[in-house]
Amino acid sequence: MIVLVLLGAGIFALLVAFAFARQVLAIAPTEGAANPQEASRMQQIADAIREGSRAFLRREYQILILFMVIFAIIIVLVIDDPTTTVRDGLYTAISFLVGAATSIASGYIGMWIATQGNVRTAAAARQSLARAFTIAFHSGAVMGFALTGLAVVGLVFMYLVLSGILPPIEEHYLMEILSGYGLGGSSVALFARVGGGIYTKAADVGADLVGKVEAGIPEDDPRNPAVIADNVGDNVGDTAGMGADLFGSIAESTCAALVIGGTAFAFAPEDIRMSALLFPIFVSALGIVASFVSLFVARVKKEADVEKALKRTLVVASVLVLVLAYPFVQMMLPEHFQLSPDGPLYSRMGVYVSIAAGVISGLLIGLLTEFFTSNRYNPVKSVAESARTGSATNIIYGLALGYNSAVIPMLLMAITVVLAYSLAGMYGIAMAAIGMLSFLAIELAIDAYGPVADNAGGIAEMAGMGKEVRHRTDVLDAAGNTTAAIGKGFAIGSAAFTSLALTSAFLTRAQLLHIDMLKPIVLAGLMIGAALPYAFSAMTMRSVGKAAFDMIEEVRRQFREIKGLLEGKAKPDYARCVDIATRASLREMIAPGLLVIGTPLVIGFLFGVEMLAGVLIGALISGVMMAVSMANSGAAWDNAKKYVEKGELGGKGSDVHKATVVGDTVGDPFKDTSGPSLNILIKLMAIISLVFVPFFKEMGGLLLK
Amino acid sequence: MIVLVLLGAGIFALLVAFAFARQVLAIAPTEGAANPQEASRMQQIADAIREGSRAFLRREYQILILFMVIFAIIIVLVIDDPTTTVRDGLYTAISFLVGAATSIASGYIGMWIATQGNVRTAAAARQSLARAFTIAFHSGAVMGFALTGLAVVGLVFMYLVLSGILPPIEEHYLMEILSGYGLGGSSVALFARVGGGIYTKAADVGADLVGKVEAGIPEDDPRNPAVIADNVGDNVGDTAGMGADLFGSIAESTCAALVIGGTAFAFAPEDIRMSALLFPIFVSALGIVASFVSLFVARVKKEADVEKALKRTLVVASVLVLVLAYPFVQMMLPEHFQLSPDGPLYSRMGVYVSIAAGVISGLLIGLLTEFFTSNRYNPVKSVAESARTGSATNIIYGLALGYNSAVIPMLLMAITVVLAYSLAGMYGIAMAAIGMLSFLAIELAIDAYGPVADNAGGIAEMAGMGKEVRHRTDVLDAAGNTTAAIGKGFAIGSAAFTSLALTSAFLTRAQLLHIDMLKPIVLAGLMIGAALPYAFSAMTMRSVGKAAFDMIEEVRRQFREIKGLLEGKAKPDYARCVDIATRASLREMIAPGLLVIGTPLVIGFLFGVEMLAGVLIGALISGVMMAVSMANSGAAWDNAKKYVEKGELGGKGSDVHKATVVGDTVGDPFKDTSGPSLNILIKLMAIISLVFVPFFKEMGGLLLK
Repeated sequence: MIVLVLLGAGIFALLVAFAFARQVLAIAPTEGAANPQEASRMQQIADAIREGSRAFLRREYQILILFMVIFAIIIVLVIDDPTTTVRDGLYTAISFLVGAATSIASGYIGMWIATQGNVRTAAAARQSLARAFTIAFHSGAVMGFALTGLAVVGLVFMYLVLSGILPPIEEHYLMEILSGYGLGGSSVALFARVGGGIYTKAADVGADLVGKVEAGIPEDDPRNPAVIADNVGDNVGDTAGMGADLFGSIAESTCAALVIGGTAFAFAPEDIRMSALLFPIFVSALGIVASFVSLFVARVKKEADVEKALKRTLVVASVLVLVLAYPFVQMMLPEHFQLSPDGPLYSRMGVYVSIAAGVISGLLIGLLTEFFTSNRYNPVKSVAESARTGSATNIIYGLALGYNSAVIPMLLMAITVVLAYSLAGMYGIAMAAIGMLSFLAIELAIDAYGPVADNAGGIAEMAGMGKEVRHRTDVLDAAGNTTAAIGKGFAIGSAAFTSLALTSAFLTRAQLLHIDMLKPIVLAGLMIGAALPYAFSAMTMRSVGKAAFDMIEEVRRQFREIKGLLEGKAKPDYARCVDIATRASLREMIAPGLLVIGTPLVIGFLFGVEMLAGVLIGALISGVMMAVSMANSGAAWDNAKKYVEKGELGGKGSDVHKATVVGDTVGDPFKDTSGPSLNILIKLMAIISLVFVPFFKEMGGLLLK
Repeated sequence: MIVLVLLGAGIFALLVAFAFARQVLAIAPTEGAANPQEASRMQQIADAIREGSRAFLRREYQILILFMVIFAIIIVLVIDDPTTTVRDGLYTAISFLVGAATSIASGYIGMWIATQGNVRTAAAARQSLARAFTIAFHSGAVMGFALTGLAVVGLVFMYLVLSGILPPIEEHYLMEILSGYGLGGSSVALFARVGGGIYTKAADVGADLVGKVEAGIPEDDPRNPAVIADNVGDNVGDTAGMGADLFGSIAESTCAALVIGGTAFAFAPEDIRMSALLFPIFVSALGIVASFVSLFVARVKKEADVEKALKRTLVVASVLVLVLAYPFVQMMLPEHFQLSPDGPLYSRMGVYVSIAAGVISGLLIGLLTEFFTSNRYNPVKSVAESARTGSATNIIYGLALGYNSAVIPMLLMAITVVLAYSLAGMYGIAMAAIGMLSFLAIELAIDAYGPVADNAGGIAEMAGMGKEVRHRTDVLDAAGNTTAAIGKGFAIGSAAFTSLALTSAFLTRAQLLHIDMLKPIVLAGLMIGAALPYAFSAMTMRSVGKAAFDMIEEVRRQFREIKGLLEGKAKPDYARCVDIATRASLREMIAPGLLVIGTPLVIGFLFGVEMLAGVLIGALISGVMMAVSMANSGAAWDNAKKYVEKGELGGKGSDVHKATVVGDTVGDPFKDTSGPSLNILIKLMAIISLVFVPFFKEMGGLLLK
């Protein structure tokens, strides 16, 4: 019964996505274009962006599939014990591959609709702002609902498969095998987020530095050879990367909750055992319904409405989840439960409070992020002001803003941890993560809206659609920037909780219920963990630098060698720039990827699970602070620049503006590569630890033996 | 007997300092000046710097004394229990005041000799590099030996006073009262490091931004109204601030070791009990001897020698400590000891290994810092290269370098923790800190050498002593920059260990031998702790910004209102700039100061010692990473700029150079304010926790009751 409800919710989400996709595609790509020439120019550009995006994904998937196969073999080799009745390694590997495939599919769908929506949004902007908004937002919604639908359906499908194939085993054991699904999703996110993040910023920095700074041509100018790559980057980084990251979060936190719940509810009364076990997936299903309802408040009539409309959907969805979750907690969970035979007795109300704490802190983190990164509030204004004394002070203030903006989110998380953990133990932590992610469909719709609007602006500029159209797409884009910041805050917050949930599941599976922080190896683990985000960020920042350098060289070469390019008489070789960014980004993600995957395996193998727990928590607390501050510094510099471009403090072209451009360029890898990539670091390390517990138990702590 | 040896060593250090001071002062201030006019110009400038430094200290001390009295009263009120036989709060407050007074005295001595040495170094540079080096280095040595001597004598003095006044009490109890001494030293450091750090960078940024960037006049140009304040800043920030910071480290880590040792050796055999109890101070005494011997290898004949000579002293001193400590460990400590009645039995060889691990990792951290911040190696060269594509990439690469440079030091610390803790428990941690600080006298001599050389360069420039003299002081200054970087790495490393040692002493005193990291409040404590360095750095960075802004306004005003200033026909109002920097920096340090002092008191009071332990460790791991990366990013930008100024990549005045100037300006508050101030954050919070344990025990965890 419950399984059917879950499948139903998942399929409902897919149908919603399908309906939106049909709506978007029903419009002819260039409907509304002023004349056939404009339509043809738009079509050409849109095709180039689509082609570039596909080319990136195709090459990424080639490497990805190779990686997945190797990793699946490692899982089988390392975890599998063929002499036992249940070949857990083999089935974990299968879950892993299904999770990866589902994640790839959702990323692909998101990118595909984004590259269809962008040109239609640009064309619609010729008619009205409201129409353009609707198309962009609906494109985003396709991704939001498709991804959550796929996540739910995929999980339920794997659950059914495993319970069908496997001999009757204990529930928690089945859930542990299922957690391979989360690992699959998260591994794809490594490629999409880190590789995509490097791509998007290499292209952006390359395009900006040579185009805007050296050649003195405006943003999105078609004479800039890197301009298509830049627009491709919005799709591969912001759409596919963000999608894979959040797919990972929802898959992982659900797996974590299932693992912990598998222990907690194994002995629940027969009539509600199944519903209690699958309750974590059910909350996501509830969130799909809540997100769907919230769509109806996303109406835009005039300029000032866009941001408000987007924020309103978030608030409505989260309130709905809060209201809806209450009766279902009562119905579906046993009144009391224990996480271990002699552990404390928790009440199901504790689970409700945990979900609520997750929902509320997720929403607050998002809104705080907006406060710190929107140029309607003082923090960004003071960063812009600081540019009056040059780019150095602008950088200093932006960094300070980022540091500062991470403090309250961390406090909110600490409060949520105390509440959830005290009232519902490790299960509470996992359910807080799921609560935070419950309105993911609408959150992602808003996130994916951003790059569509950004791309639409690019197309409008490159196709020379005129000032009015560009102004409308700029309005959409500006709102997208703010919501992107909210989305990033949300992504990091949920990554932190996902990681905590996974760490809790890991500890549950490893049967570690207490860890003495004063043990030398635990303390050393915390120290090493705290160092990892620094090592990782240094790598990703330099990766952007190196990839951007490749781009810069190429753009300079084209300006030098293609005669008449700057005069607009010759066309640049866009494809070559796309190709260079693709190759550079995939090359540059290898080292950080190995660090993330290798660290938990090596630590667990050599020093055992206690030190590994220290590493995970150290990396979590250090990584979250760094990720939030990087993302917010970057967004603040970006919006400080936009603030000046609106005409404040001397406006475009002034010295203040030049100073803010430097800040914006520094912020690019901060907010779009290194910051978000840290999400992957903290989550992927935790799920690897969870999945490889059997290996660590058998072989772990080699050096301490 | 042992007390006499310790006093003897302390007094020996003071005599060494006295001898060097006499040597420096025996030279007439302007001996070697080309002519009486030059001599008189030099004298004027040196007087202005000295006057400005004194003015800052005078005003700082006024506030400081007020603060000390209030804090002492709080200690008495909060800790003292008049009904008991031993009024521990009262005596703790007395120890506190003695510690503060000693620290103030050492800071004052350091600053006084620095403002005497600078002009003499400048004058001697007219004759020869070797002579100038000797004077600058001897001035530094005065501070190094005076400070360590005062620390040892002060501690022994307080120990004698307490054991004389107090009725016979348990040793560990006496040591706990003595730990007020460390708190006093550390509180002065808060003012000197944070206030001084804000001062030095406000003046520097103010001088640079208006002078170099806006008015286009060179560094240290006498027409710049902020130039004296800038030179004063070197003294108050780099000399007095660094000195107070390291005085705090040695005082605190010794107190920590004494507290833990008081428990460990209370029942040691009578014949070695005293020597075992006071062994931590003895290691510092050994270090004084080792540092003294190492002075004899500090000989400079030609340019390339300066840096090598300075580094050689460090290596010699640390090897000497390693060799000397071995027999004394055998003689002075019982063969085995326990830290609690049912705790593990440790061997004294574990103590030796801990000291050795501290010495070696301190030295390695210093040398690694040099590798990452000297422009003779690739890391800084690649930061300079990155400036070819503008200041934004220069910033990105510099930040990445900083992140990266913090990773291995953290690993070294983790290894040291595992070794020390496994082999000698918490006593091992404290002894590792003392090992690291053992060669403090020579380390400080090298550190204090830097600002003297820097000031000498300033005087040479302002007095118009010509190219050759300036070149010589530049050589000395460049070496000073490198050693300053080593010194900063060392200061942070020792702060980390001091903080760990203090946390260990705090846990010992609170009788917390295990802390479950999975308890919600401990986990929340770790999270909050990790957030603190971010909140604190945001504050200090903006403080520099605000104070610098005051300076910039003043410098601009003078350029605008004083006619003929830029043409060199009128004199700027130096004193007013000094005054503005003084007031702004003291105003701006209040908020960060309250954060540091208030947090442990509030957390301990409301949530108890377990959560406080989480906060301390969270702040430690997050703060160390941040402090090291900030200090090294800053030093790398500075030296990348210097690399370009040597003529590489286009040399002075090129676009690359301009880009590196931006990096250097961003790096200024990083390396001289926010980074080093984090040392104070992590140490001061830990010693406050240690001293206030009785209060927390009585009242702590109010909210959890």
